[in-house]
Amino acid sequence: MNNLFFKKKNNVNINDILDCLQIKKQKNNYHINDIKELDFAEKNDISFFHSSKYLKELNNTKSKLIVTNSKLKKFIPSKIKLIEVNNVLLSIYKITSLFYPDALDDHFDINLEHISIKKYTNLKVGLNILIGKNVSIGKNCSIGHNTIIEKNVRIGHNCNIGSNVIIKNSIIGNNTNILDGAIIGKKGFGFFPDKDKNIRYPHIGAVIIGNNVEIGCNNTIDRGSLSNTVIGNGTFLDNQVHIAHNVKIGKNCIVTGQVGFAGSSTIGNRVMIGGQAGISGHLTVGDNVQIGGGSGVIKNIPSNTKVMGYPAKNIRNFLRDNKIDD
Amino acid sequence: MNNLFFKKKNNVNINDILDCLQIKKQKNNYHINDIKELDFAEKNDISFFHSSKYLKELNNTKSKLIVTNSKLKKFIPSKIKLIEVNNVLLSIYKITSLFYPDALDDHFDINLEHISIKKYTNLKVGLNILIGKNVSIGKNCSIGHNTIIEKNVRIGHNCNIGSNVIIKNSIIGNNTNILDGAIIGKKGFGFFPDKDKNIRYPHIGAVIIGNNVEIGCNNTIDRGSLSNTVIGNGTFLDNQVHIAHNVKIGKNCIVTGQVGFAGSSTIGNRVMIGGQAGISGHLTVGDNVQIGGGSGVIKNIPSNTKVMGYPAKNIRNFLRDNKIDD
Amino acid sequence: MNNLFFKKKNNVNINDILDCLQIKKQKNNYHINDIKELDFAEKNDISFFHSSKYLKELNNTKSKLIVTNSKLKKFIPSKIKLIEVNNVLLSIYKITSLFYPDALDDHFDINLEHISIKKYTNLKVGLNILIGKNVSIGKNCSIGHNTIIEKNVRIGHNCNIGSNVIIKNSIIGNNTNILDGAIIGKKGFGFFPDKDKNIRYPHIGAVIIGNNVEIGCNNTIDRGSLSNTVIGNGTFLDNQVHIAHNVKIGKNCIVTGQVGFAGSSTIGNRVMIGGQAGISGHLTVGDNVQIGGGSGVIKNIPSNTKVMGYPAKNIRNFLRDNKIDD
Repeated sequence: MNNLFFKKKNNVNINDILDCLQIKKQKNNYHINDIKELDFAEKNDISFFHSSKYLKELNNTKSKLIVTNSKLKKFIPSKIKLIEVNNVLLSIYKITSLFYPDALDDHFDINLEHISIKKYTNLKVGLNILIGKNVSIGKNCSIGHNTIIEKNVRIGHNCNIGSNVIIKNSIIGNNTNILDGAIIGKKGFGFFPDKDKNIRYPHIGAVIIGNNVEIGCNNTIDRGSLSNTVIGNGTFLDNQVHIAHNVKIGKNCIVTGQVGFAGSSTIGNRVMIGGQAGISGHLTVGDNVQIGGGSGVIKNIPSNTKVMGYPAKNIRNFLRDNKIDD
Repeated sequence: MNNLFFKKKNNVNINDILDCLQIKKQKNNYHINDIKELDFAEKNDISFFHSSKYLKELNNTKSKLIVTNSKLKKFIPSKIKLIEVNNVLLSIYKITSLFYPDALDDHFDINLEHISIKKYTNLKVGLNILIGKNVSIGKNCSIGHNTIIEKNVRIGHNCNIGSNVIIKNSIIGNNTNILDGAIIGKKGFGFFPDKDKNIRYPHIGAVIIGNNVEIGCNNTIDRGSLSNTVIGNGTFLDNQVHIAHNVKIGKNCIVTGQVGFAGSSTIGNRVMIGGQAGISGHLTVGDNVQIGGGSGVIKNIPSNTKVMGYPAKNIRNFLRDNKIDD
Repeated sequence: MNNLFFKKKNNVNINDILDCLQIKKQKNNYHINDIKELDFAEKNDISFFHSSKYLKELNNTKSKLIVTNSKLKKFIPSKIKLIEVNNVLLSIYKITSLFYPDALDDHFDINLEHISIKKYTNLKVGLNILIGKNVSIGKNCSIGHNTIIEKNVRIGHNCNIGSNVIIKNSIIGNNTNILDGAIIGKKGFGFFPDKDKNIRYPHIGAVIIGNNVEIGCNNTIDRGSLSNTVIGNGTFLDNQVHIAHNVKIGKNCIVTGQVGFAGSSTIGNRVMIGGQAGISGHLTVGDNVQIGGGSGVIKNIPSNTKVMGYPAKNIRNFLRDNKIDD
């Protein structure tokens, strides 16, 4: 699959990559198609392995060229070529910038104009709405006052967008409501700390929101770095929810107020999360899980369990360990 | 008391209600005035009993007709007629929609116009302010730039509304300040989960804010479903506070940054709540209670106590159980 | 140093101060230059001592006149004159209002106009931007749509301000990004509770943001009361972070989503703070500290330590005490 919104440079060869990593070029130069995560990479794509959490994806990847470090290189199957670097993620940043030179700048979209409802079917609009290039809006939608839809947004049918909303780099399904003040699709909080000036990470992913979804007031949902941030069909988010880059939330989930998701976690279907709970990064939460309000989830949660606490544990153990004897 | 803002259908009979619940009509048809919670219902109103937490209200209600389920019907006094259903709240949603067909849609108010200060006494305004129908503003108020006041808002005297604020379905007292970015009066996060498409719950309540109140930046305060969301006189809320539907906060409370209230809890007077604390739903917190920052309150708190922790307990026990020995 | 933005009354004498505190005037009237915190006061400034946490600052202060109470007066060095009052902070509020009568009102800035890019060098602007008096903007900046820059703001070179941002009373360095929806520079949540009407505290401090900083979406950063709120060079803040008045954050810190800082805490350099953590007021966190997501920091943290938990403790002890045995 090609990138949804960001323009890819098509003439990248292995020696361009080695060159940008300051590694000696090789004799046998050949074409590299794209940079992808292990589970999305095709055979001509370069990928990367930076944590043993992704061993399963490594063993199933179609990529034939992987960036890794000296500690992890022992895990790379022998049929895959590897590029050894000191800092895998920093190298990936450099390679991504090579493929997608336009994805680094995430400043406001200056090419907006006031919306013209004539272009759309049965669209109800408020006042002072700004809209960018490469935006499509389905039938019977409404958009509230002062809302800004920057470039690279596809909105389905029967959607209602509130007032003071900002959206960019997002695909939104049908029958979905986005409430006032939500900010969707900006780059994630991904960068490389550096003494003088942190190096910002290019984010070439999108935010993909399903059908029959509700996004609450003042939510912030960041787009993915290499993969997408995903909110499944029928999932409802309450106010002041924060979803970091690359998070995948399943179908029919209920996420209550002020919940936060750190980057790259995957949440199953029909998961219920109480207010102010936090989900750490790079975790997997199964289907039909219930997470109590205020919980801090710092490990994977299997399907069909109820957890609570900080750190979150089985709710029976939480209640056993937390008798309130006042 | 009639509903403050939503138009009620006045010709609803008992057989209309039975019909919408798909229950067989009865011979003796008669008029039902309104749908109300147990403690607000008058004798011609229909009410509902869906949790044994509300036994006290049940025994004091004036309603003569109550919707309940097979488990709870034993608690209904014999002088009260009951309608037995499988899902009390889903039935109440249907009956509320019957009385208030306009309350279901909570999309942006399209009938706004730029404010005309001539209508008001000594009103100071910023630029690009939009204002809807059925809005009143008292003397000596100020309203900041880009603020949207949708329909059904009454603002008292000497109030200062910041910039980028959105208000609807709310009554605001005198000398009250609402700071930048606050969103007040949208429907609560109440709905019935459903595999295909969650069923949104009508919210016919308002937000009632007292005198001398301060509402912080980027707060989100949802209006009530059947009753109102209430913020008492002299209460101050810091930034990024979230208040869900039907919450009642008393007078002279101090609520610090990022605190969240789940739905339908009642907080007393002079309650102090530290930053990031969370109050679960359907709880009662007494007067003069102090809740430490970061606490998770999951049970009722009696008056004149100090609590801390997750779950919140008496602060002496919290300190005893949480020696920091590093 | 003179106050950055608020106009000081220059003819305040000791008897004006005694008068506003309802204390008997003294024969020897003399001029007082300003009101300052202990560590910033010069010899002609009045200062105050309201907590034994500030003993070190008391012993190093240059001030020769200090407001304190009966409990704390024993700590005042004999060479310093003292004014004894019942409520130190309430007295300070009165004295600050005497020096800075304009600093009490923090309502929206009515004196804004649409930005004119001709005044600035290579400025890229969105639509509907409002700008106040005493604002400077460096070279090569960009400002997004609907953003409001009220009076008293200095922005350096190469800064990118997003859309729907509100800034006032702030100084911003070079190469700094402020993302959509951030609200920076309003007065802090400081006031004196009072039965009838809380007494708001004047805030004469600013927000000082360094070079190469990133401020996330929907952040709220309050300006200081007497001193400034400071964000050091190279520090990055994720979305929905709340920073209360007088907080000082060092250089090259990483603050993840939904973190909150209560007032007047000081954070060192290269501190990493996980999502939803909270830092209580009046604390000191050293350099190179790592604070786990969801932690509640309620005591000082020495440099070069990792802490986690609520209350936060050394991470080894946290893991020892929180085995997850499900």
